[in-house]
Amino acid sequence: MKNRSGYQERELSDYLATPYLPTKDAVAFDAIEKAADRVLEETGIRFQDDPGTLDQLRQIGAVVDGDIVRLEGDVLRQIIRRSAPSSFRLRARNPNRDTIIGGSAHAGFAPIYGAPDVLLESGQRVKGVRDIYRQLVSIAHQSAGLTNTGHMICVMDDVPEVSRPLEMLLAHLTCSDKPFMGSIASPEIAMEYIDLTAAAIRRPPLAGACNLLHLVNCTPPLTYWENPLKCLRSIAQAGEAAMISSYMMMGATSPATIAGTLIQGYAEVLAGLALTQLWKPGAPVVMGILGWPFDMRSMQPNFGDSASQLVQLYSTELARRLGIPSRGDGAVTSAKVDDAQAGSEGARVLAAAVVSGADFILHSTGWLEQGRCVSVGKFRRDAAAIAETYLRTSIACEPPVALDPAIEAEIGERLVKLPKVA
Amino acid sequence: MKNRSGYQERELSDYLATPYLPTKDAVAFDAIEKAADRVLEETGIRFQDDPGTLDQLRQIGAVVDGDIVRLEGDVLRQIIRRSAPSSFRLRARNPNRDTIIGGSAHAGFAPIYGAPDVLLESGQRVKGVRDIYRQLVSIAHQSAGLTNTGHMICVMDDVPEVSRPLEMLLAHLTCSDKPFMGSIASPEIAMEYIDLTAAAIRRPPLAGACNLLHLVNCTPPLTYWENPLKCLRSIAQAGEAAMISSYMMMGATSPATIAGTLIQGYAEVLAGLALTQLWKPGAPVVMGILGWPFDMRSMQPNFGDSASQLVQLYSTELARRLGIPSRGDGAVTSAKVDDAQAGSEGARVLAAAVVSGADFILHSTGWLEQGRCVSVGKFRRDAAAIAETYLRTSIACEPPVALDPAIEAEIGERLVKLPKVA
Repeated sequence: MKNRSGYQERELSDYLATPYLPTKDAVAFDAIEKAADRVLEETGIRFQDDPGTLDQLRQIGAVVDGDIVRLEGDVLRQIIRRSAPSSFRLRARNPNRDTIIGGSAHAGFAPIYGAPDVLLESGQRVKGVRDIYRQLVSIAHQSAGLTNTGHMICVMDDVPEVSRPLEMLLAHLTCSDKPFMGSIASPEIAMEYIDLTAAAIRRPPLAGACNLLHLVNCTPPLTYWENPLKCLRSIAQAGEAAMISSYMMMGATSPATIAGTLIQGYAEVLAGLALTQLWKPGAPVVMGILGWPFDMRSMQPNFGDSASQLVQLYSTELARRLGIPSRGDGAVTSAKVDDAQAGSEGARVLAAAVVSGADFILHSTGWLEQGRCVSVGKFRRDAAAIAETYLRTSIACEPPVALDPAIEAEIGERLVKLPKVA
Repeated sequence: MKNRSGYQERELSDYLATPYLPTKDAVAFDAIEKAADRVLEETGIRFQDDPGTLDQLRQIGAVVDGDIVRLEGDVLRQIIRRSAPSSFRLRARNPNRDTIIGGSAHAGFAPIYGAPDVLLESGQRVKGVRDIYRQLVSIAHQSAGLTNTGHMICVMDDVPEVSRPLEMLLAHLTCSDKPFMGSIASPEIAMEYIDLTAAAIRRPPLAGACNLLHLVNCTPPLTYWENPLKCLRSIAQAGEAAMISSYMMMGATSPATIAGTLIQGYAEVLAGLALTQLWKPGAPVVMGILGWPFDMRSMQPNFGDSASQLVQLYSTELARRLGIPSRGDGAVTSAKVDDAQAGSEGARVLAAAVVSGADFILHSTGWLEQGRCVSVGKFRRDAAAIAETYLRTSIACEPPVALDPAIEAEIGERLVKLPKVA
């Protein structure tokens, strides 16, 4: 049976239990790109409350109708291929811990991002708090399996919301000297992070290098909200890195099929990636297309399902065709405790990311229960497994070099000046 | 740094956390083949106590010195490529359950092979016995995730050794109508299996089809023992399938390195594969090269180690270059219970086999503790995970069609006539 793109549809089982040889399947990738181009041209992407973006896109021939923008895929790909780097250096306070994202470098690994709850090694389950956050950054620092200490490993429930970004920054700068990720709480906070991190790293600007990688999610289906869009612009214009991701729930926020999810996700990230290169040619980017089947019984995404692995294998190749680095997901699972289910689901997802050639793997350690909980014990075990399995080392990292006290004092002062909120 | 084959040596981490794109790494495969050719030519392979094999190999120009035979790799590859089929049909008593091994078919999955002990669902650990064996074949039959019920799922400790082959055959023929694997207890028993299975399948011989797949292991380093060699000849001459495997303990029975293990294993299986085609051009074969790092602390192979995944990824491509189907290993682990370690180790090994494109995956279900124990609960869970993850189905198989009573009676009579042993 042939679909309207002329691409031979295959049995689903053919996709699953047969070899992954992306270089032999160019026809599938051509079909995905063509179908995404139709989505961009006929349905368009919604850019909420950001006239600047609409103006920018009009200049490359986009058709703007309210906040819906209809785009040409070929034009977007040309813009991306013309200037987006195939790899970049993500710098650290300790230059020995700089990492290369993309190109022929091995994958980078960062911990879970965004967990509200924490499962302690005692077995107790608590809300995330500041002390635990700092402990998790310290563990991430020591772990040979993590090349990056990430961002928002857990929520700081005991810290007023307004103070959390600077408290997190302080944790990453004092408990570690590895690279870490930036904030997208607001464009102003993103810039504050960028400036303070540059001051802490104390190295002059360098072509092909940046200091922070930011997770910028579009909101499927086919929408960019105002805040991520404005953050993305600030980040790109500052020459810092953005990991533009579509994190789809298949059957809820994207089509239920693997092909449909890839098509929608590709259309979404293509628009964001091209915007960065319009704002600042050469701005470092990472592309992420991730899909998780939505389970209608539990009303939750099914982390660990094999469909996600195929989305991963194909999305990395889509990024390779654009010539830019790609994102993978790590040991994610729907399991509530670190049992055989957690082990097998997590290992399958992580193995798909590594084998696909993903360049930056988020959620590598600690993830439990659809990401709602970070387990401290699992965090350590996942990091040890990555170190032994994929990096062939188990040597704990040396303690971090000390942060410049002036920077620490500066962040402390800014924290004191923040409005007091209950 | 370049080694003597002129192949650029890379950091080990390059092999591990970077994409698997075999079609872009032809240089590595050329180097492995060339190095294996040197092993065949300079060190040779030992064929124990089988003058017939030595005569056969002399005719293709081999240099025979005692039981050591020095061979030309190019000649062996020519022989294999000339007649070994790229795929074949493995028939079942129920023609709807025939499976295709190789070509563009999806992978086949068979259970653990050779476990002495059984972990029951009650948590009790016992020696394998006849009743449990039959129960495990029934579970394998019902499981949508298994396309083959295998062989020697556990040992039958309550059955005299002389009666075990026929008791196993009876279990596979009566508790299932899926394809299964043959016996290599002796050449005579192999032929008895082949004849009785052909009678049970009741279909005329067909080009490109056979009734049994046999696991024939060489004995690393670089040796074929008398019994497997004689079994291999009988099996090939009968036109039945042989899965010629080298199962190496890296650092004990093969070099500690991944490249060295691939070189030795390839030299070993190349010799066995060519022999089958000399004995019977067109005899169906599967190639298996598997390596597990030997742990000097526990004096056991380390199942689940990432080195094995690279051996798997590269060995499948070596088979692809020969144009024949390849073997993978399933959810194997060093864990003693079905915990997070069992889950993650097993999922990593199985994912490597599936992604590599291995055509027949042994030890897919039930494996615990370096294969010394089959867990009934894990057997069910592994099979369910394969069904859902790789075959996208969870429909239990219909009960088996009844075995021809004449065949059942015939096997019963043969069992009665066997010598009585305590």
